[in-house]
Amino acid sequence: MGKQDVFKPGLEGVIAAETRVSYLDTEAEEIVVKGYDLIELAEQKTYLDLVYLLIQNKLPDAMELKGIESALNNAYGLPSGIYTILSTLPQDTHPMDALRTGISALAGYDPELNDRSKAANQAKALRLIAQVPNIVANSYRILHQQKTILPDKQMSYSKNFLYMLTGNDPSEQETAVFDQTLMLYSEHEMPNSTFTARVIASTHSDIYGAFTGAAASLKGNLHGGANEAVMYMLLEGKTTSGFLKLIQQKLARKEKVMGFGHRVYMKKMDPRAALLKKALFTLSHKTGRQDLYEMCDAGETLMREEKGLYPNLDYYAAPVYYLLGIPIELYTPIFFAARSVGLGAHVIEQHADNRLFRPRVHYTGPRGLHP
Amino acid sequence: MGKQDVFKPGLEGVIAAETRVSYLDTEAEEIVVKGYDLIELAEQKTYLDLVYLLIQNKLPDAMELKGIESALNNAYGLPSGIYTILSTLPQDTHPMDALRTGISALAGYDPELNDRSKAANQAKALRLIAQVPNIVANSYRILHQQKTILPDKQMSYSKNFLYMLTGNDPSEQETAVFDQTLMLYSEHEMPNSTFTARVIASTHSDIYGAFTGAAASLKGNLHGGANEAVMYMLLEGKTTSGFLKLIQQKLARKEKVMGFGHRVYMKKMDPRAALLKKALFTLSHKTGRQDLYEMCDAGETLMREEKGLYPNLDYYAAPVYYLLGIPIELYTPIFFAARSVGLGAHVIEQHADNRLFRPRVHYTGPRGLHP
Repeated sequence: MGKQDVFKPGLEGVIAAETRVSYLDTEAEEIVVKGYDLIELAEQKTYLDLVYLLIQNKLPDAMELKGIESALNNAYGLPSGIYTILSTLPQDTHPMDALRTGISALAGYDPELNDRSKAANQAKALRLIAQVPNIVANSYRILHQQKTILPDKQMSYSKNFLYMLTGNDPSEQETAVFDQTLMLYSEHEMPNSTFTARVIASTHSDIYGAFTGAAASLKGNLHGGANEAVMYMLLEGKTTSGFLKLIQQKLARKEKVMGFGHRVYMKKMDPRAALLKKALFTLSHKTGRQDLYEMCDAGETLMREEKGLYPNLDYYAAPVYYLLGIPIELYTPIFFAARSVGLGAHVIEQHADNRLFRPRVHYTGPRGLHP
Repeated sequence: MGKQDVFKPGLEGVIAAETRVSYLDTEAEEIVVKGYDLIELAEQKTYLDLVYLLIQNKLPDAMELKGIESALNNAYGLPSGIYTILSTLPQDTHPMDALRTGISALAGYDPELNDRSKAANQAKALRLIAQVPNIVANSYRILHQQKTILPDKQMSYSKNFLYMLTGNDPSEQETAVFDQTLMLYSEHEMPNSTFTARVIASTHSDIYGAFTGAAASLKGNLHGGANEAVMYMLLEGKTTSGFLKLIQQKLARKEKVMGFGHRVYMKKMDPRAALLKKALFTLSHKTGRQDLYEMCDAGETLMREEKGLYPNLDYYAAPVYYLLGIPIELYTPIFFAARSVGLGAHVIEQHADNRLFRPRVHYTGPRGLHP
């Protein structure tokens, strides 16, 4: 069969798409997003700048930024049917499953659902970016018998999101840190969930279907669940010595230590993690939880010395979210909410220049049987 | 970067998995399912034999067949919350979106949700195979303000499914034809929806997530919507001459004629279509609708002569479902229900020997921009 006959499990190293959205330059250790270095963006811009960049294909000027902010503010709300559906789900429904069901149901309310034009896809992506935080926060509240929190249109995007997650009015600093985490989670080339979204979109299925599939993908603990696993490990460890002992036990049992390494760039530290390490330092001093920073730092050193592995984004996002007062089960749904903008950009691109994904297989089973 | 640098849009010809589930042998024109020729199975066996074969890895003896039939009968029912959720969806929700939302919500009711062992996955696949027809039929009824139809445990799987779809007690012959269509749709190597399911499952996400993503994929008109498009074309054509004129107009406008050709075997006739052509012949004579058979046959000849294209399964499934009295909007959901068994087999296989899908990209955008 020739060249295509070479089987790469998990499509490792296989080029699955041409894209102008983003690229992991593993040699330069740079996460390229629409031509920019994601880290530079995260240091100098806000999440809404990235939303504009990824959906409208350029960084916004002040007026454009105002425009997108007000468009999002006005789209925060959810149809009441979505709350009814979330309230009907069994109480122990996984937060990612509640999110997935909410997004899936939302499709029926979108008047542009079947329009795959660029303009319609941009509008739908923005609506989803506005509404997903509402589903994330309120599905959790409903499943935990708490009152829903209506979004506050007067608040900026990230402030409103954090407010709905915690129920408290966030400070400027808390909002800024949270906003930065959203930027760092916003887009990352072709991870499994983005790939899922593009594969689904390639049948001409709509953006809601693509997002629904991506939510299903991100639920898996090899993809989205790592930030939560890190936090449970930190809480189990309790102190620096306890945490180091826990990691050593895991290493001795040859178990995977979550929050370290990454399929694509394992050799050096994830630049996103480095940025959030700084944020954690600031936040831990502000809240008197320097112990948490020290635990993380010690764990990082141990893993580098023992295994040559460096922390990834999830390792430092977890304690940051913890100190922001966010329930641990919501870390993966927040990752999804932040990634919505990247997913939107990929679906827009897939629909604009489409080829149905339809690979082949190596059949390794029996032949020639007869009933 | 070497060999993996070759970009195949849509992963055409790229080997994405090793599998013992099925294989399209394009040279022998054989659809191999667990070592058997699908056409032989569809001529000599029933859908439940295929369910057993695909999930339990062997054709069942009489006792085993009885066992799986009774297991499925007892799992037909849905939690009342699912009906509530379906009733809450906006009335013009697409049937595939309703199905997707129903499956997504169902996850929260499964006590084995997070167990990815083979035994648990087999049990969950069987529950989904039992319940999906119920969601398919009753989501349609609810969205059309019709009374729900409870499944009848006394009926065989295919008879009950057809009964829930039409509201009428099907004859032996109708049940047999419908059962055969389910077999022909049951499994087909690595189409987009199956690929979606495996990509999602590879993150360790569960079978409900994989099915939800597959439903999103099958909704797209490049994948699952073709059988419905064929029927609308037949109805628009009305007569043989009208139908031929319609096809000729489409060809003149260089539009795609749905129901013809297939990415993987375009040169000869889809053997599944040949089998359903026979079923259509019988059914059309039984119901006095020979005209429908003649239209299809004439369309087939025209497309072969004009374009060298042969009918695929959807081309003959559409008029068969029409003569069975099934609403046209349900053709794709039925395709999904029939394919559930194939999806289940693939998820079981993916979880048993997993490697996370995480391909790369060719970045074609700008570089070196600064905010």
